[in-house]
Amino acid sequence: MSVLTPEQFNRFIDPAAVAVIGASSKTGPGHYNLFENLLREGCRARLYPVNRRGTDILGVPAYRSVKDIPESVDLAIIVVPRQHVVEAVRECAEVGVPAAIVITQGFADADTQGRAWQQEIKEIIAGSGTRLIGPNTIGLANAFNELHTSFQKFDLYPQANAMICQSGMFILASANFINGLGLGVDIGNAADIGFAELLPCLAADDRIRVINLHMESLTNAKQFVDNAANITLEKPVLVYKVGRSAKAAQAAASHSGALAGEDHVFDAAFDKAGIIRVDDLDEMLDLNKALLTYPSIRGQRIAVVSLSGGGGIAVLDALGRYGLEVAQPGQAVLDAIQALNPPWLEVGNPVDTWLAALKHGLAEATREILGLLLSDDQVDGAIVLLNAYRTTGFEVMDPMVAGIVAEAGKRPDKPVALWAFGLNQHAVIARAEESGIVAGFTSPERAARALAGLYHYHHDIKGRRREPSATFDDVDPDRVAGLLSEAEGTPVLGSATLDILEAYGVRVARARLVSEPKAALELADEMGYPLAIKVASDDVIHKSDVGGVRLDIRDADELLAAWEAVLAGVREHLPEAVIDGMYLQPYHRGSVELFVVARLSHFGPLIVFGLGGIYTEILKDVVFTLAPLSLGEAQETIRRLKSHSVLAGARGGDKVDEESLAESRGRVAQLVSDFPQIQELDINPLAATPGGVLALDARAVLAVRKDQL
Amino acid sequence: MSVLTPEQFNRFIDPAAVAVIGASSKTGPGHYNLFENLLREGCRARLYPVNRRGTDILGVPAYRSVKDIPESVDLAIIVVPRQHVVEAVRECAEVGVPAAIVITQGFADADTQGRAWQQEIKEIIAGSGTRLIGPNTIGLANAFNELHTSFQKFDLYPQANAMICQSGMFILASANFINGLGLGVDIGNAADIGFAELLPCLAADDRIRVINLHMESLTNAKQFVDNAANITLEKPVLVYKVGRSAKAAQAAASHSGALAGEDHVFDAAFDKAGIIRVDDLDEMLDLNKALLTYPSIRGQRIAVVSLSGGGGIAVLDALGRYGLEVAQPGQAVLDAIQALNPPWLEVGNPVDTWLAALKHGLAEATREILGLLLSDDQVDGAIVLLNAYRTTGFEVMDPMVAGIVAEAGKRPDKPVALWAFGLNQHAVIARAEESGIVAGFTSPERAARALAGLYHYHHDIKGRRREPSATFDDVDPDRVAGLLSEAEGTPVLGSATLDILEAYGVRVARARLVSEPKAALELADEMGYPLAIKVASDDVIHKSDVGGVRLDIRDADELLAAWEAVLAGVREHLPEAVIDGMYLQPYHRGSVELFVVARLSHFGPLIVFGLGGIYTEILKDVVFTLAPLSLGEAQETIRRLKSHSVLAGARGGDKVDEESLAESRGRVAQLVSDFPQIQELDINPLAATPGGVLALDARAVLAVRKDQL
Repeated sequence: MSVLTPEQFNRFIDPAAVAVIGASSKTGPGHYNLFENLLREGCRARLYPVNRRGTDILGVPAYRSVKDIPESVDLAIIVVPRQHVVEAVRECAEVGVPAAIVITQGFADADTQGRAWQQEIKEIIAGSGTRLIGPNTIGLANAFNELHTSFQKFDLYPQANAMICQSGMFILASANFINGLGLGVDIGNAADIGFAELLPCLAADDRIRVINLHMESLTNAKQFVDNAANITLEKPVLVYKVGRSAKAAQAAASHSGALAGEDHVFDAAFDKAGIIRVDDLDEMLDLNKALLTYPSIRGQRIAVVSLSGGGGIAVLDALGRYGLEVAQPGQAVLDAIQALNPPWLEVGNPVDTWLAALKHGLAEATREILGLLLSDDQVDGAIVLLNAYRTTGFEVMDPMVAGIVAEAGKRPDKPVALWAFGLNQHAVIARAEESGIVAGFTSPERAARALAGLYHYHHDIKGRRREPSATFDDVDPDRVAGLLSEAEGTPVLGSATLDILEAYGVRVARARLVSEPKAALELADEMGYPLAIKVASDDVIHKSDVGGVRLDIRDADELLAAWEAVLAGVREHLPEAVIDGMYLQPYHRGSVELFVVARLSHFGPLIVFGLGGIYTEILKDVVFTLAPLSLGEAQETIRRLKSHSVLAGARGGDKVDEESLAESRGRVAQLVSDFPQIQELDINPLAATPGGVLALDARAVLAVRKDQL
Repeated sequence: MSVLTPEQFNRFIDPAAVAVIGASSKTGPGHYNLFENLLREGCRARLYPVNRRGTDILGVPAYRSVKDIPESVDLAIIVVPRQHVVEAVRECAEVGVPAAIVITQGFADADTQGRAWQQEIKEIIAGSGTRLIGPNTIGLANAFNELHTSFQKFDLYPQANAMICQSGMFILASANFINGLGLGVDIGNAADIGFAELLPCLAADDRIRVINLHMESLTNAKQFVDNAANITLEKPVLVYKVGRSAKAAQAAASHSGALAGEDHVFDAAFDKAGIIRVDDLDEMLDLNKALLTYPSIRGQRIAVVSLSGGGGIAVLDALGRYGLEVAQPGQAVLDAIQALNPPWLEVGNPVDTWLAALKHGLAEATREILGLLLSDDQVDGAIVLLNAYRTTGFEVMDPMVAGIVAEAGKRPDKPVALWAFGLNQHAVIARAEESGIVAGFTSPERAARALAGLYHYHHDIKGRRREPSATFDDVDPDRVAGLLSEAEGTPVLGSATLDILEAYGVRVARARLVSEPKAALELADEMGYPLAIKVASDDVIHKSDVGGVRLDIRDADELLAAWEAVLAGVREHLPEAVIDGMYLQPYHRGSVELFVVARLSHFGPLIVFGLGGIYTEILKDVVFTLAPLSLGEAQETIRRLKSHSVLAGARGGDKVDEESLAESRGRVAQLVSDFPQIQELDINPLAATPGGVLALDARAVLAVRKDQL
C-alpha cells in the first residue's frame, strides 16, 4: 500500500519549477500547445522547456534533457511522442524529479507495445523518488494558483470542490459538471497514482469541501474503501461511476456470480465507504451546488412558495419522490400569511403567492411569506419558484431574488432552493447563486433531489456511527485451519463446511442421509418430529422446484407418504436422476429459509445475502455487503431486502430473530477474512426462526494453489 | 359526451372580435392588465373593453355590458371580481357569445360560495350556445396569431406543439418546459371544456405535431382515453401527470384497492391510449425536442462520436440504461475511420475523434467521421459530443456545429443528437437547433432518453396495431342476467360468481365442501386424484400462510394425513378459528395460481392481474389494464409481469397456456363491461396450466342500488 504524502502532492499542484519535456513552439488554437498555455495563462512556476533541439521555445531558453536544467525541478510534464516517453521518465527518475505527468496517450489504452511501455514506466519509477500521474491524461488543474496542464483551454472556474477522474473532460467541463473546480486530477491510465492515494490528499486540503470522482475502474480497491470510509465522515465524496449497463450485459456463468456482477460490488463498496453514487451528470451538478451552498439541513420538512398553484403541486410530487416531507407550518404563521390574502383563499403549504403579490407586489409578497415560513419550527427548508421569463426582465426578477436571498441569509440552517423556469432560468439562477446563499435548479425534481441528497449526506452518511467490525472471541481458528488442511487439494468442500461454520460459532443442523424408508423411520424416531426431507441426488439442482422437498412432517405416516411423494415428484420431472436417498433434517415451523454467500472480490470478501427461491431467482432481491461487517451494518442491511416483511412475519411465519441473523453474517465475514483460501462459501439454506438461525447446508470453494490467494 | 367542434374551438383561438369584461385602465408591470397586454402585443382581433363605468379604457371606447357591443363577439374574456362573474357569464349566454374565458379565480378552487357559483355557471351555459374555458385560468395562447389572454407577459416562442394544462405556468413557461408553443389552453377549473374535448381539436390542427398535457385530475375519463387512443396513432401525446406520490400516500383500505391506487389507474389509461407519461419536466422538454426535430428513427443502434474516451463511455452507459444499442459499424466504415488515425489506435464505437482532430482539425474530423457512420446500414442514429467551453469561443464551435448539421441534413432518417458540455452548452445548443435538423441535450443520459423516447413513440405507439376488442359470441348474457336478478339485494356474491364466469366461457373448477374425513374420502373417489384441500373457515383470510392448504394429494392416505395437517396448522396459528370443514378441489400439477380482479374506475372497468401470494403482497407485481381488452393487449400485458418467467416454467412448473390466460381476461373484461352492476369481481385463485386456465374460487361485489351504477 503506497501513500502519496501531502508534500509529494504539493509538488504536483503547486510546483515552483516545471519542466515541459517535448515542449513545442507551434502556436495558435489548432496546435493545442500545452507549453504555450502554461506560459500565457497565469502559471506562476518557473518554466523550463525541454526539447531535442535545445533551441528557445516561444522565447524561453530550452534544454536538451531534464538533466540539464540548472535547478531542481518539482514537476515534469511529458508530452513527447509515445516511443520517447520511457526515456523521458527514466531521466526524471535519474535526477530525482519528485512529480511527473505523462500526457501522451498510446500505452495501456492502446496496443501490446503500449502496454509493455507502461509496464516499463512502472518499473522505472518503482523505488525511485518519482511519483507519476498518467499516462494518457490531461494532468491536473489547480484553480487556486491558476495552474493547469491541459493542452486544451477550458473554463477553470474556482470552487471549493475537487475532481479525480479517468478522463480529462471531467476537469475540462467541471464548470458545467460540478459547478466549478478547485483541484482536479485526471489519473489517466493510473500507472502509478490512483484514486486510493489521491483521496486523502484532497481530504486534507482545507480549501476543498466536496470531492467528486469519475470512475471507470479501480485499483487498490480495499485501500480506497478504507480511506474513503474515514473521509466521508468529514467531507462528502460523490462518484459518477460508469459501466453500469455494460457490466450488466456480462452475464456471469454461475448463479451467484451473475447476481454479484461487478457493478453491484462497486455499489456495496460505495455504500460501505459512505460514498454517494450519483445517478447521472445532472445529479452530480445539483449535489455539488447543494453541498457547497448550504451548511446543512436539520430535517426533511420543506415549505413551498409558489406564485402558481400547479407549480406548487409539481413540487409536492417531487418532494414525495425523493422522500422529503411537506412541512406543516404552525397556525401563527398560517394566520400571518392569511392576512396578506383575501379571506376566502385557503392558506396551506404550498403557499400560493399570487393574490398577495397583486396586493403587495411580487418581490415583497415572496420575501415576507418566505421569511414567515423560515421562522417556523416546523419548517426545515424551502423551495421557491421563480418565473424567469425573458420578457419579465431583470428589473422584476432582481428585487425578487434579493428578497429571497435576504430572508435565506437570516437562516443559514434552513436551505432555500430556487426552481427557476422560463427562458432566463439559467441567467436568473446564476445571479441568485452569486450570493453564495441560495442555489437554483431547473426543475422541481432536481430541486427536491438536491435537498434530499443534502439531507442524506448530513444525516445518513456524515451522521453515521463508525462501529467497530464485529469480532467474535469464541471462534476456533485452529479447528478451521485443521479442517482446511485436511481438505487440501479439494477444490469444493461439501458438508465439512458446516464443521467450519460451527467452529466460528454459526449454529448448524446437519442433514442425515438415509437410503430407504425403514432407515428413515428409525432415524426420525431418534431425531424427533417435525422433520423435513429432501431428495439426495447430484442430478437435482433446484430441489423444491421438482417436488424434491417436503417440510413439516409430523409423524411416521406423514414421513412415509412424503417419501413416496418426493420420489414420484422427482421421477416425474427428472426421470433420469439417480437418487441416493433422502436427507432428514429437523424442521423449524415458521422458519424462513435464506442464503448467505461469501466470495472474494477486489474489495475483499463480499457477503451476498437474501431469501432463497423466487426472491432471488425471479426478483433478484439480494443484498451485497463487504466484509468486515459491524453488527449495526449487518442489521441495517437486512432491512434493505424488499422481502424484509417476510422476516417480520408477513407470510404467516413468526418474526425471526434478526439479531442472530446479523450475527451469523458477521461470523461468516470474520471467517472468510481470517481464511482467504476460502474463495467462496455458500450457506443455503440458512433457516431463520424466532429462536435463532441454523445453517442447514453449506459448501465452500477452496483455493487449491497458493497463487490463487 | 359533449364535443367541441373545430368551429367553436376556432372562436377561442382565432377570434375576430373580443370583449374583455372587467377591462382595467391601470397600466404598468405591477398591474398585470390583460387588456393592456392584448392591446399592445399584437392581438389582431377587434377589442371591446366592457366596464361598469363605460368610459374609455386606454383610449378604446368601452361598453357597460357585452350586450351593448355593436357587433357579434366571438370571444368574451371575463376578469371581473368573482362575485360578478355569474352575471357576466349570463349576459354572454344571453347574447349568444360562442366562446368565453373566465380568468377570475375563487370558484371550485376556493370556498363553498365559490363552488356554488361555479355550479351556477355550469347551469347557465348548459344548452346555451356558449362554451367556456375556466374559471381560474390564464386562458389560452396562440403563437400563430400572437393572441394570448394571460395577465402576465411571457416568452411566447412559436413551435409546432400544443399544451393543455391545469395551471397557467405550463403555458407561461412553455418556452422552457416544451421548447416553445404553438397553441396552449389552460383549462383551469374546467367547469365546461376539459382535456377530452380539446384533444381532438388540437389533433385536427395541421400546425401541431406534438401535444402536451399537464394533468392534475380528469373528467370525462373514458371519452378522453377513447379520443387519445386514435390520436396517438398520428401524433404523439405526452403527459406530465402530478399526484404520483400524494396518491401513493392515500393508502386505500382494502387489499386490491391499495394496489389499484388512482395513479396506477391513470398509468393503465395512458398505456391504453398510447399516451407517453414523462417522468419529469426535463423529459418533457427533451421529448418535445426529439419529436419535433426528427421525422423518425428506424432502429435502436446508436453511434457515438466523441473527442473524449471517457465521455464516449458515459454515453454507452446511458444508451444501455434506456434500452438503446451500441451500433457496430461495418468494417469498411471502420477502415475509413482508421485511415484518419494512427495505426495503433483501436477504432470502434464510440469513435474517439481526438487524434483525427489533431491531424485534420476538430470540425473536419468530426464531420467526416459522422458522415461515415451515418452512411453505414448498421447505424440508426448518432450522439455527438460538443465541448462548448466558454474559452473555446464560437469561432471554433460554429464550424464544428455546421459540419455536424451538414452531415445530419443528408440523412434525415438518422437522428443526430448533441451532448454539449461546458459553460456555453446552452448557447451552443441554441445555435445548433436553429438548423431544425439536430437537437441538443445537456447530459448523455438526457440525450439517450430522448432518442429512446423517439423510438418508443414511432415503433411501440405509432406503429402498434389497433386490434378490435376481444368479443366472444359464445357468452350467455341471459344466464348472467338471471343469476344477477336472483342475487338482487345481495351485496356480495360468493360461489355463484363461478356460475356467472362459466356463462361467459371462463372454465371453472368448483371446490366442494366436506365436513369430515370420511366424506372427504368418498368425494375424493368420485372426483379422482390428485386433489387439493383447503380449510373452510370464515376466520382464515390467508389460508396458505397458516398451513390451511395442501396441494397434490395423490391417494387416500395422503388425504387423511393432509386433513390432520391442515387442522393442526390452522389450530396452531388461529386457535379461535371456527372450521367448517375442508374444500376439495381437483389439483393440476405444475399449475401456477394467479388472480384476476375487475373493478370499476373512472376510466371504465379496470382489470388487475398477477400471481398471488408473495408476488402480490410483498412485491406488488401486478398489471393494470382497462376493459375492453384486445387479445393482443391481454397477451402483451402478461409479459409485463416481473414474475412472467414463472408462467414460462422458471419454478419447475410447466409452461402455462398464456393464450387461454389472455382469453380469460378478455372474457372477464367483456362480462364486467356488459354488466356494470358487477362493481368488483375477484377470481382468486385462477389456476393456469399447460392445458388452459381454471377459476377455482371467485366472488363479486354487486351494486345494490341503482344510483351506484
